[in-house]
Amino acid sequence: MERFENSTGKVQQVITSSSNETVKHVRSLLGKKHRDKSRQFIAEGEKIVSEALSSSWQTELLVFSESYSGSLLNRGRELGIRCLVVKDSLFQSLSDTQTPQGVLAVIQQRDFHLQNIIAQESGFVVILDGVKDPGNLGTIIRTVDAAGAGGVILIHDCVDACNPKAVRATMGSIFRVPLYREGSADELFDNLVRAGWHIAASDLKGTDAFEWQGGFDKTALVIGSESHGVSETARSRAHSLISIPMAGGTESLNASVAAGILIYEIFRKGREMDG
Amino acid sequence: MERFENSTGKVQQVITSSSNETVKHVRSLLGKKHRDKSRQFIAEGEKIVSEALSSSWQTELLVFSESYSGSLLNRGRELGIRCLVVKDSLFQSLSDTQTPQGVLAVIQQRDFHLQNIIAQESGFVVILDGVKDPGNLGTIIRTVDAAGAGGVILIHDCVDACNPKAVRATMGSIFRVPLYREGSADELFDNLVRAGWHIAASDLKGTDAFEWQGGFDKTALVIGSESHGVSETARSRAHSLISIPMAGGTESLNASVAAGILIYEIFRKGREMDG
Repeated sequence: MERFENSTGKVQQVITSSSNETVKHVRSLLGKKHRDKSRQFIAEGEKIVSEALSSSWQTELLVFSESYSGSLLNRGRELGIRCLVVKDSLFQSLSDTQTPQGVLAVIQQRDFHLQNIIAQESGFVVILDGVKDPGNLGTIIRTVDAAGAGGVILIHDCVDACNPKAVRATMGSIFRVPLYREGSADELFDNLVRAGWHIAASDLKGTDAFEWQGGFDKTALVIGSESHGVSETARSRAHSLISIPMAGGTESLNASVAAGILIYEIFRKGREMDG
Repeated sequence: MERFENSTGKVQQVITSSSNETVKHVRSLLGKKHRDKSRQFIAEGEKIVSEALSSSWQTELLVFSESYSGSLLNRGRELGIRCLVVKDSLFQSLSDTQTPQGVLAVIQQRDFHLQNIIAQESGFVVILDGVKDPGNLGTIIRTVDAAGAGGVILIHDCVDACNPKAVRATMGSIFRVPLYREGSADELFDNLVRAGWHIAASDLKGTDAFEWQGGFDKTALVIGSESHGVSETARSRAHSLISIPMAGGTESLNASVAAGILIYEIFRKGREMDG
């Protein structure tokens, strides 16, 4: 540990050793096993840490690089959150970006109860079915937030939503969109159908989404992975299979773009019905 | 250079030296300066190289890693294209992915004449205004292809569309979508307006895109960067400013998702008018 005067003249301690216990704990959160065990995750970058601090989620710890010069160090201290300053190379080892902004937060995971969403009288949820790409998963959570949908349910071995890349791609929406992880897809579909939900699954051979007459309310939209599409379970349980028309030479869209188009098409239909 | 027997029993030469002239040329194409000078670019990965070989674009060279076991080596040889096999670590140095698939193509760039698109009697083009992220740029080209739009025009210092990451994100659409780079945005807008095009620019404060009454035909949609939006020039020249409604807590969408929603909304409106 070394001592420096920071720009405001205050003496601060800078951690230089990679074997520091807290540093080791933070680094362990880059892996799913330790995230699951500790029920914590890392949110990295200026915007998302700022969103975390404004949310009702519990920030356990803030870590800054020595050369960080933004305002979050003071804000964290004012909020009484434990703040760690580490040397730049050590920060790099905790970061999953190539050019880190020098700030990350360790945040407590939260549990959401699926029953809350299933019991809703109206609404719209997105079910992600085997989405493996953390960037796509996070981007879809961001779109769900923008469209004001009620939540995201993960089935069939999606990538962990608390993966640092996924969290980053949400740009803070992870603190606003309830996330559910459901072990049994069959049970989920049983419960949704019993509660009167309409299940629509995205499928390349489905009905043209713009001509589709459903999707106004109480709709669960199932989105699959870019390479494999939705699972056989989802396909067989869906009331509607819907697709985005392809006019040109390509046979597919990027998974988060396709999800965005379908989510906003359901949003648009819902609003037309209301208005 | 070493000689090996490959899986089909044929003796093949494997390049092992990073100072091989062809290897040095390919590596130079990772940089924009050399791409501009040689008018060539790299397309990497199984799917996209396969699309390149099926397209009318000229493939100058194929490079394979020693451990590559797909079918493109034989296909390249059958087509009479020069094929190079290099040792895996050397291939890695030519690749911009962390886990390369072991195949890349060097392709001749093509020129498209803006006048062709401006003179069209009907259609839809996308103008990218200062989009710096190669992944977003490539993904938008892919969406433009899917929606059957007529082309993409790059203004105001967009990232090079021949950047390897951008090319990869197009998933092959780069070989189908005409791309134009226009030095003077003012001149472009003058020409479009004179030819009767409607210019719609994406803007957070614009009219709700789903309520907007334009965008059926001969529309040029301007999309800005995720961080800065469209330029002042585009804003001042646009006939319409349009936005995607935000129902939730986030104030923005991922740039390629936003572009996808707007492109397909114009597609949908156009189809409704036709049908």
